[in-house]
Amino acid sequence: MQCSYSETTPSKFAQAKTSTLAAVDLSKKGSVDQPISNLIELVNNLDDYFTTSSCSGRTIIVANSLAHGSRKKGCKWLYVTHGDSVFTDVIECLREEPLPESATLKFEPFIMHVQCLSLESARQLLQIAVSCGYRNSGISLGKSGKIILAVRSTAGLEVPLVVDSRLLVSEQYIERLVGMANEKMSSNLMQISKFQGKLDEFAKEQR
Amino acid sequence: MQCSYSETTPSKFAQAKTSTLAAVDLSKKGSVDQPISNLIELVNNLDDYFTTSSCSGRTIIVANSLAHGSRKKGCKWLYVTHGDSVFTDVIECLREEPLPESATLKFEPFIMHVQCLSLESARQLLQIAVSCGYRNSGISLGKSGKIILAVRSTAGLEVPLVVDSRLLVSEQYIERLVGMANEKMSSNLMQISKFQGKLDEFAKEQR
Repeated sequence: MQCSYSETTPSKFAQAKTSTLAAVDLSKKGSVDQPISNLIELVNNLDDYFTTSSCSGRTIIVANSLAHGSRKKGCKWLYVTHGDSVFTDVIECLREEPLPESATLKFEPFIMHVQCLSLESARQLLQIAVSCGYRNSGISLGKSGKIILAVRSTAGLEVPLVVDSRLLVSEQYIERLVGMANEKMSSNLMQISKFQGKLDEFAKEQR
Repeated sequence: MQCSYSETTPSKFAQAKTSTLAAVDLSKKGSVDQPISNLIELVNNLDDYFTTSSCSGRTIIVANSLAHGSRKKGCKWLYVTHGDSVFTDVIECLREEPLPESATLKFEPFIMHVQCLSLESARQLLQIAVSCGYRNSGISLGKSGKIILAVRSTAGLEVPLVVDSRLLVSEQYIERLVGMANEKMSSNLMQISKFQGKLDEFAKEQR
Protein backbone atom coordinates (compact mmCIF):
# COMPACT_ATOMS: atom_id res chain seq x y z
CA MET A 1 0.00 0.00 0.00
CA GLN A 2 1.33 3.36 -1.09
CA CYS A 3 0.54 6.37 1.09
CA SER A 4 2.33 9.67 1.76
CA TYR A 5 0.00 10.93 4.49
CA SER A 6 0.20 10.06 8.15
CA GLU A 7 -3.17 9.84 9.90
CA THR A 8 -3.63 10.64 13.55
CA THR A 9 -3.75 7.68 15.94
CA PRO A 10 -7.12 6.28 17.12
CA SER A 11 -6.35 7.28 20.72
CA LYS A 12 -5.51 10.89 19.78
CA PHE A 13 -8.67 11.01 17.66
CA ALA A 14 -10.82 9.73 20.53
CA GLN A 15 -9.26 12.33 22.83
CA ALA A 16 -10.00 15.16 20.35
CA LYS A 17 -13.56 13.88 19.93
CA THR A 18 -14.22 13.82 23.66
CA SER A 19 -12.86 17.30 24.31
CA THR A 20 -14.57 18.86 21.26
CA LEU A 21 -17.97 17.42 22.10
CA ALA A 22 -17.63 18.43 25.76
CA ALA A 23 -16.83 22.03 24.74
CA VAL A 24 -19.79 22.13 22.32
CA ASP A 25 -22.13 20.86 25.02
CA LEU A 26 -21.08 23.67 27.32
CA SER A 27 -21.14 26.56 24.85
CA LYS A 28 -24.26 25.68 22.87
CA LYS A 29 -26.56 24.51 25.63
CA GLY A 30 -30.10 25.34 24.59
CA SER A 31 -29.07 26.67 21.19
CA VAL A 32 -28.95 23.47 19.17
CA ASP A 33 -29.65 23.89 15.46
CA GLN A 34 -32.96 22.01 15.60
CA PRO A 35 -33.36 20.81 11.96
CA ILE A 36 -30.03 18.97 12.17
CA SER A 37 -29.90 17.98 15.84
CA ASN A 38 -30.68 14.32 15.00
CA LEU A 39 -28.17 14.31 12.15
CA ILE A 40 -25.45 15.71 14.42
CA GLU A 41 -26.21 13.06 17.03
CA LEU A 42 -26.10 10.35 14.35
CA VAL A 43 -22.65 11.49 13.16
CA ASN A 44 -21.28 11.80 16.68
CA ASN A 45 -22.53 8.33 17.60
CA LEU A 46 -20.28 6.85 14.89
CA ASP A 47 -16.85 5.94 16.28
CA ASP A 48 -14.88 7.34 13.32
CA TYR A 49 -16.47 10.80 13.16
CA PHE A 50 -17.42 13.93 15.05
CA THR A 51 -18.85 17.26 13.94
CA THR A 52 -16.74 20.37 14.50
CA SER A 53 -19.22 22.94 13.14
CA SER A 54 -22.45 23.04 11.20
CA CYS A 55 -25.38 25.17 10.07
CA SER A 56 -28.73 23.75 8.94
CA GLY A 57 -29.16 26.55 6.40
CA ARG A 58 -30.29 30.15 6.70
CA THR A 59 -31.59 33.17 4.89
CA ILE A 60 -29.82 36.38 5.87
CA ILE A 61 -29.69 40.03 4.88
CA VAL A 62 -26.19 41.41 5.33
CA ALA A 63 -25.56 45.14 5.37
CA ASN A 64 -22.25 46.84 4.71
CA SER A 65 -21.65 50.39 5.86
CA LEU A 66 -18.71 52.72 5.88
CA ALA A 67 -18.12 53.19 9.59
CA HIS A 68 -18.57 56.78 10.76
CA GLY A 69 -15.39 58.81 10.40
CA SER A 70 -13.32 55.95 9.06
CA ARG A 71 -12.78 54.06 5.85
CA LYS A 72 -13.11 50.72 7.55
CA LYS A 73 -16.14 48.78 6.44
CA GLY A 74 -18.54 47.33 8.96
CA CYS A 75 -20.77 44.33 8.37
CA LYS A 76 -24.10 43.85 10.11
CA TRP A 77 -26.88 41.31 9.82
CA LEU A 78 -30.25 42.98 9.33
CA TYR A 79 -32.17 39.72 9.19
CA VAL A 80 -31.56 36.05 9.84
CA THR A 81 -33.76 32.98 9.95
CA HIS A 82 -33.01 29.25 9.97
CA GLY A 83 -36.62 28.61 8.99
CA ASP A 84 -39.00 30.28 6.55
CA SER A 85 -38.42 33.95 5.81
CA VAL A 86 -41.37 36.23 6.49
CA PHE A 87 -41.98 38.90 3.86
CA THR A 88 -43.25 41.58 6.26
CA ASP A 89 -40.20 41.14 8.53
CA VAL A 90 -37.83 41.38 5.57
CA ILE A 91 -39.51 44.54 4.29
CA GLU A 92 -39.48 46.08 7.75
CA CYS A 93 -35.72 45.77 8.14
CA LEU A 94 -35.25 47.40 4.71
CA ARG A 95 -37.35 50.41 5.73
CA GLU A 96 -35.27 51.46 8.71
CA GLU A 97 -33.64 54.82 8.05
CA PRO A 98 -30.87 55.55 7.36
CA LEU A 99 -30.39 52.71 4.87
CA PRO A 100 -26.96 51.06 4.96
CA GLU A 101 -24.46 51.59 2.16
CA SER A 102 -25.45 48.20 0.77
CA ALA A 103 -27.59 45.22 1.73
CA THR A 104 -27.67 41.75 0.17
CA LEU A 105 -30.08 38.87 0.67
CA LYS A 106 -28.36 35.48 0.81
CA PHE A 107 -29.62 31.96 1.11
CA GLU A 108 -26.87 29.82 2.60
CA PRO A 109 -27.61 26.08 2.52
CA PHE A 110 -26.67 23.36 5.00
CA ILE A 111 -22.98 22.96 5.76
CA MET A 112 -21.26 20.54 8.12
CA HIS A 113 -17.63 19.97 9.04
CA VAL A 114 -16.82 16.48 10.23
CA GLN A 115 -13.48 15.37 11.65
CA CYS A 116 -12.69 11.82 10.52
CA LEU A 117 -10.48 9.17 12.09
CA SER A 118 -8.97 7.99 8.82
CA LEU A 119 -8.83 8.73 5.11
CA GLU A 120 -10.94 5.65 4.47
CA SER A 121 -13.67 6.87 6.82
CA ALA A 122 -13.50 10.34 5.22
CA ARG A 123 -13.77 8.78 1.75
CA GLN A 124 -16.85 6.78 2.75
CA LEU A 125 -18.66 9.79 4.24
CA LEU A 126 -17.71 11.93 1.23
CA GLN A 127 -19.19 9.30 -1.07
CA ILE A 128 -22.48 9.35 0.85
CA ALA A 129 -22.56 13.18 0.81
CA VAL A 130 -21.93 13.39 -2.94
CA SER A 131 -24.60 10.74 -3.61
CA CYS A 132 -27.07 13.06 -1.84
CA GLY A 133 -26.12 15.92 -4.17
CA TYR A 134 -23.59 17.68 -1.91
CA ARG A 135 -21.28 18.09 -4.87
CA ASN A 136 -19.11 20.84 -3.35
CA SER A 137 -18.00 18.59 -0.51
CA GLY A 138 -14.31 17.92 0.03
CA ILE A 139 -11.64 16.79 2.44
CA SER A 140 -9.00 19.00 4.08
CA LEU A 141 -5.78 17.48 5.37
CA GLY A 142 -3.94 19.05 8.28
CA LYS A 143 -0.20 18.70 8.79
CA SER A 144 -0.67 16.77 12.02
CA GLY A 145 -2.97 14.12 10.58
CA LYS A 146 -6.22 16.02 11.18
CA ILE A 147 -8.75 15.06 8.50
CA ILE A 148 -11.84 17.24 8.05
CA LEU A 149 -14.65 16.57 5.59
CA ALA A 150 -16.75 19.61 4.65
CA VAL A 151 -20.23 18.63 3.43
CA ARG A 152 -21.22 21.45 1.07
CA SER A 153 -24.20 22.07 -1.17
CA THR A 154 -24.25 23.84 -4.52
CA ALA A 155 -27.50 25.72 -3.81
CA GLY A 156 -27.38 29.45 -3.26
CA LEU A 157 -28.99 32.81 -3.73
CA GLU A 158 -27.17 36.14 -3.44
CA VAL A 159 -29.17 39.19 -4.37
CA PRO A 160 -28.09 42.82 -3.84
CA LEU A 161 -31.09 44.83 -2.62
CA VAL A 162 -29.62 48.12 -1.41
CA VAL A 163 -26.82 49.75 -3.41
CA ASP A 164 -25.35 53.17 -2.53
CA SER A 165 -27.94 53.50 0.24
CA ARG A 166 -30.85 53.12 -2.18
CA LEU A 167 -33.29 50.22 -2.29
CA LEU A 168 -33.16 49.23 -5.97
CA VAL A 169 -35.83 46.53 -6.12
CA SER A 170 -39.61 46.60 -5.70
CA GLU A 171 -41.61 45.13 -2.83
CA GLN A 172 -43.21 42.76 -5.32
CA TYR A 173 -39.76 41.46 -6.27
CA ILE A 174 -38.77 41.04 -2.62
CA GLU A 175 -41.97 39.07 -2.03
CA ARG A 176 -41.05 36.66 -4.86
CA LEU A 177 -37.49 36.47 -3.57
CA VAL A 178 -38.69 35.50 -0.10
CA GLY A 179 -40.79 32.78 -1.75
CA MET A 180 -37.76 31.49 -3.66
CA ALA A 181 -35.58 31.52 -0.54
CA ASN A 182 -38.27 29.49 1.22
CA GLU A 183 -38.43 27.00 -1.67
CA LYS A 184 -34.67 26.60 -1.44
CA MET A 185 -34.92 26.11 2.31
CA SER A 186 -37.53 23.42 1.79
CA SER A 187 -35.33 21.56 -0.78
CA ASN A 188 -32.43 22.03 1.62
CA LEU A 189 -34.35 20.29 4.42
CA MET A 190 -35.35 17.44 2.10
CA GLN A 191 -31.71 17.00 1.12
CA ILE A 192 -30.68 16.92 4.80
CA SER A 193 -33.29 14.26 5.45
CA LYS A 194 -32.00 12.19 2.51
CA PHE A 195 -28.46 12.50 3.88
CA GLN A 196 -29.65 11.48 7.32
CA GLY A 197 -31.43 8.43 5.86
CA LYS A 198 -28.34 7.25 4.00
CA LEU A 199 -26.18 7.87 7.05
CA ASP A 200 -28.58 5.83 9.13
CA GLU A 201 -28.18 2.87 6.74
CA PHE A 202 -24.42 3.35 6.85
CA ALA A 203 -24.49 3.32 10.66
CA LYS A 204 -26.45 0.06 10.63
CA GLU A 205 -23.93 -1.55 8.27
CA GLN A 206 -21.12 -0.52 10.62
CA ARG A 207 -22.56 -2.40 13.58
CA MET B 1 3.09 5.91 9.66
CA GLN B 2 -0.62 5.22 9.88
CA CYS B 3 -2.64 5.38 6.66
CA SER B 4 -5.82 3.64 5.48
CA TYR B 5 -5.77 4.95 1.91
CA SER B 6 -3.87 3.46 -0.97
CA GLU B 7 -2.56 5.99 -3.48
CA THR B 8 -2.12 5.21 -7.14
CA THR B 9 1.42 4.34 -8.27
CA PRO B 10 3.66 7.00 -9.87
CA SER B 11 3.69 5.10 -13.17
CA LYS B 12 -0.12 4.84 -13.34
CA PHE B 13 -0.36 8.53 -12.45
CA ALA B 14 2.09 9.47 -15.21
CA GLN B 15 0.09 7.37 -17.67
CA ALA B 16 -3.20 9.08 -16.69
CA LYS B 17 -1.53 12.48 -16.96
CA THR B 18 -0.21 11.82 -20.45
CA SER B 19 -3.50 10.51 -21.82
CA THR B 20 -5.61 13.25 -20.17
CA LEU B 21 -3.42 16.07 -21.45
CA ALA B 22 -3.32 14.55 -24.94
CA ALA B 23 -7.14 14.36 -25.05
CA VAL B 24 -7.47 17.96 -23.84
CA ASP B 25 -5.04 19.15 -26.50
CA LEU B 26 -7.14 17.55 -29.21
CA SER B 27 -10.60 18.64 -28.04
CA LYS B 28 -9.85 22.18 -26.92
CA LYS B 29 -7.51 23.33 -29.65
CA GLY B 30 -8.04 27.04 -30.11
CA SER B 31 -10.50 27.29 -27.24
CA VAL B 32 -8.14 27.71 -24.30
CA ASP B 33 -9.55 29.67 -21.38
CA GLN B 34 -7.20 32.61 -21.87
CA PRO B 35 -7.12 34.18 -18.35
CA ILE B 36 -5.89 30.88 -16.88
CA SER B 37 -3.86 29.44 -19.75
CA ASN B 38 -0.56 30.26 -17.98
CA LEU B 39 -1.85 28.88 -14.69
CA ILE B 40 -2.92 25.63 -16.35
CA GLU B 41 0.48 25.31 -17.98
CA LEU B 42 2.19 25.97 -14.64
CA VAL B 43 0.17 23.21 -12.92
CA ASN B 44 0.72 20.72 -15.72
CA ASN B 45 4.47 21.39 -15.72
CA LEU B 46 4.64 20.14 -12.13
CA ASP B 47 5.34 16.39 -11.99
CA ASP B 48 2.81 15.64 -9.25
CA TYR B 49 -0.23 17.38 -10.78
CA PHE B 50 -2.41 17.80 -13.83
CA THR B 51 -5.65 19.70 -14.43
CA THR B 52 -8.74 17.70 -15.36
CA SER B 53 -11.15 20.64 -15.81
CA SER B 54 -11.30 24.35 -15.10
CA CYS B 55 -13.13 27.61 -15.73
CA SER B 56 -11.58 31.05 -15.26
CA GLY B 57 -14.90 32.50 -14.11
CA ARG B 58 -17.99 33.67 -15.95
CA THR B 59 -21.16 35.68 -15.78
CA ILE B 60 -24.17 33.87 -17.22
CA ILE B 61 -27.90 34.31 -17.56
CA VAL B 62 -29.66 30.96 -17.37
CA ALA B 63 -33.26 30.57 -18.50
CA ASN B 64 -35.61 27.80 -17.50
CA SER B 65 -38.70 27.06 -19.57
CA LEU B 66 -41.38 24.42 -19.52
CA ALA B 67 -40.77 22.63 -22.80
CA HIS B 68 -43.66 22.93 -25.25
CA GLY B 69 -46.25 20.20 -24.74
CA SER B 70 -44.39 18.54 -21.91
CA ARG B 71 -43.72 19.05 -18.24
CA LYS B 72 -40.00 18.53 -18.68
CA LYS B 73 -37.98 21.61 -17.91
CA GLY B 74 -35.42 22.90 -20.36
CA CYS B 75 -32.41 25.00 -19.44
CA LYS B 76 -30.86 27.50 -21.83
CA TRP B 77 -28.08 30.05 -21.52
CA LEU B 78 -29.22 33.47 -22.69
CA TYR B 79 -25.89 35.13 -22.03
CA VAL B 80 -22.35 34.12 -21.15
CA THR B 81 -19.07 35.96 -20.86
CA HIS B 82 -15.69 35.03 -19.37
CA GLY B 83 -14.77 38.71 -19.39
CA ASP B 84 -16.68 41.87 -18.53
CA SER B 85 -20.44 41.81 -18.95
CA VAL B 86 -21.86 44.48 -21.22
CA PHE B 87 -25.06 46.12 -20.00
CA THR B 88 -26.61 46.64 -23.44
CA ASP B 89 -26.04 42.97 -24.38
CA VAL B 90 -27.57 41.78 -21.11
CA ILE B 91 -30.64 43.99 -21.57
CA GLU B 92 -31.03 42.87 -25.18
CA CYS B 93 -31.27 39.18 -24.28
CA LEU B 94 -33.91 40.03 -21.64
CA ARG B 95 -36.07 41.82 -24.21
CA GLU B 96 -36.50 38.91 -26.59
CA GLU B 97 -40.13 37.79 -26.65
CA PRO B 98 -41.48 35.49 -25.46
CA LEU B 99 -39.68 35.72 -22.14
CA PRO B 100 -38.68 32.37 -20.60
CA GLU B 101 -40.47 31.03 -17.53
CA SER B 102 -37.54 32.23 -15.43
CA ALA B 103 -34.09 33.73 -15.91
CA THR B 104 -31.31 34.14 -13.36
CA LEU B 105 -28.04 36.05 -13.54
CA LYS B 106 -25.12 34.19 -11.97
CA PHE B 107 -21.51 35.06 -11.41
CA GLU B 108 -19.52 31.84 -11.16
CA PRO B 109 -15.91 32.35 -10.03
CA PHE B 110 -12.77 30.45 -11.00
CA ILE B 111 -12.79 26.71 -10.41
CA MET B 112 -10.09 24.16 -11.13
CA HIS B 113 -9.89 20.40 -10.65
CA VAL B 114 -6.38 19.03 -10.25
CA GLN B 115 -5.47 15.36 -10.10
CA CYS B 116 -2.63 14.81 -7.64
CA LEU B 117 -0.04 12.05 -7.44
CA SER B 118 -0.19 11.70 -3.66
CA LEU B 119 -2.04 12.88 -0.58
CA GLU B 120 1.01 14.92 0.39
CA SER B 121 1.05 16.73 -2.96
CA ALA B 122 -2.73 17.32 -2.68
CA ARG B 123 -2.28 18.67 0.86
CA GLN B 124 0.43 21.10 -0.29
CA LEU B 125 -1.63 22.45 -3.20
CA LEU B 126 -4.72 22.72 -0.97
CA GLN B 127 -2.71 24.75 1.53
CA ILE B 128 -1.62 27.17 -1.21
CA ALA B 129 -5.20 27.47 -2.52
CA VAL B 130 -6.66 28.19 0.93
CA SER B 131 -3.92 30.77 1.62
CA CYS B 132 -5.14 32.60 -1.52
CA GLY B 133 -8.69 32.69 -0.15
CA TYR B 134 -10.08 29.63 -1.98
CA ARG B 135 -11.76 28.52 1.21
CA ASN B 136 -14.24 26.12 -0.41
CA SER B 137 -11.45 23.96 -1.81
CA GLY B 138 -11.28 20.29 -0.94
CA ILE B 139 -9.94 16.89 -1.86
CA SER B 140 -11.95 13.98 -3.28
CA LEU B 141 -10.68 10.44 -2.91
CA GLY B 142 -11.57 7.79 -5.46
CA LYS B 143 -11.70 4.09 -4.66
CA SER B 144 -8.82 3.30 -7.00
CA GLY B 145 -6.40 5.82 -5.51
CA LYS B 146 -7.44 8.76 -7.69
CA ILE B 147 -6.94 12.00 -5.76
CA ILE B 148 -8.61 15.17 -7.06
CA LEU B 149 -8.26 18.61 -5.51
CA ALA B 150 -11.03 21.07 -6.36
CA VAL B 151 -9.90 24.70 -6.01
CA ARG B 152 -13.10 26.61 -5.20
CA SER B 153 -13.86 30.19 -4.33
CA THR B 154 -16.54 31.50 -1.99
CA ALA B 155 -17.52 34.41 -4.26
CA GLY B 156 -20.87 34.33 -6.00
CA LEU B 157 -23.90 36.20 -7.22
CA GLU B 158 -27.22 34.58 -8.06
CA VAL B 159 -30.04 36.95 -8.90
CA PRO B 160 -33.46 35.98 -10.29
CA LEU B 161 -34.46 38.49 -12.98
CA VAL B 162 -37.42 36.89 -14.74
CA VAL B 163 -40.04 35.05 -12.67
CA ASP B 164 -43.22 33.57 -14.19
CA SER B 165 -42.25 35.06 -17.55
CA ARG B 166 -42.11 38.60 -16.15
CA LEU B 167 -39.02 40.76 -15.79
CA LEU B 168 -39.24 41.83 -12.14
CA VAL B 169 -36.31 44.24 -11.90
CA SER B 170 -35.60 47.64 -13.44
CA GLU B 171 -33.00 48.44 -16.09
CA GLN B 172 -31.26 50.66 -13.55
CA TYR B 173 -30.93 47.66 -11.21
CA ILE B 174 -29.59 45.47 -14.01
CA GLU B 175 -27.03 48.14 -14.82
CA ARG B 176 -25.79 48.11 -11.19
CA LEU B 177 -25.82 44.32 -11.20
CA VAL B 178 -23.65 44.19 -14.31
CA GLY B 179 -21.24 46.57 -12.55
CA MET B 180 -21.14 44.30 -9.50
CA ALA B 181 -20.59 41.19 -11.61
CA ASN B 182 -17.69 42.99 -13.29
CA GLU B 183 -16.21 43.99 -9.92
CA LYS B 184 -16.41 40.36 -8.84
CA MET B 185 -14.76 39.28 -12.08
CA SER B 186 -11.97 41.74 -11.48
CA SER B 187 -11.37 40.46 -7.89
CA ASN B 188 -11.57 36.94 -9.30
CA LEU B 189 -8.76 37.68 -11.77
CA MET B 190 -6.63 39.25 -9.04
CA GLN B 191 -7.13 36.15 -6.90
CA ILE B 192 -6.11 33.92 -9.83
CA SER B 193 -2.98 35.99 -10.29
CA LYS B 194 -2.15 35.68 -6.57
CA PHE B 195 -2.62 31.90 -6.80
CA GLN B 196 -0.41 31.78 -9.87
CA GLY B 197 2.30 33.78 -8.08
CA LYS B 198 2.31 31.45 -5.07
CA LEU B 199 2.29 28.41 -7.33
CA ASP B 200 5.24 29.84 -9.21
CA GLU B 201 7.22 30.12 -5.95
CA PHE B 202 6.18 26.58 -5.06
CA ALA B 203 7.37 25.33 -8.45
CA LYS B 204 10.76 27.00 -7.90
CA GLU B 205 11.11 25.36 -4.47
CA GLN B 206 10.40 21.97 -6.06
CA ARG B 207 13.30 22.20 -8.49
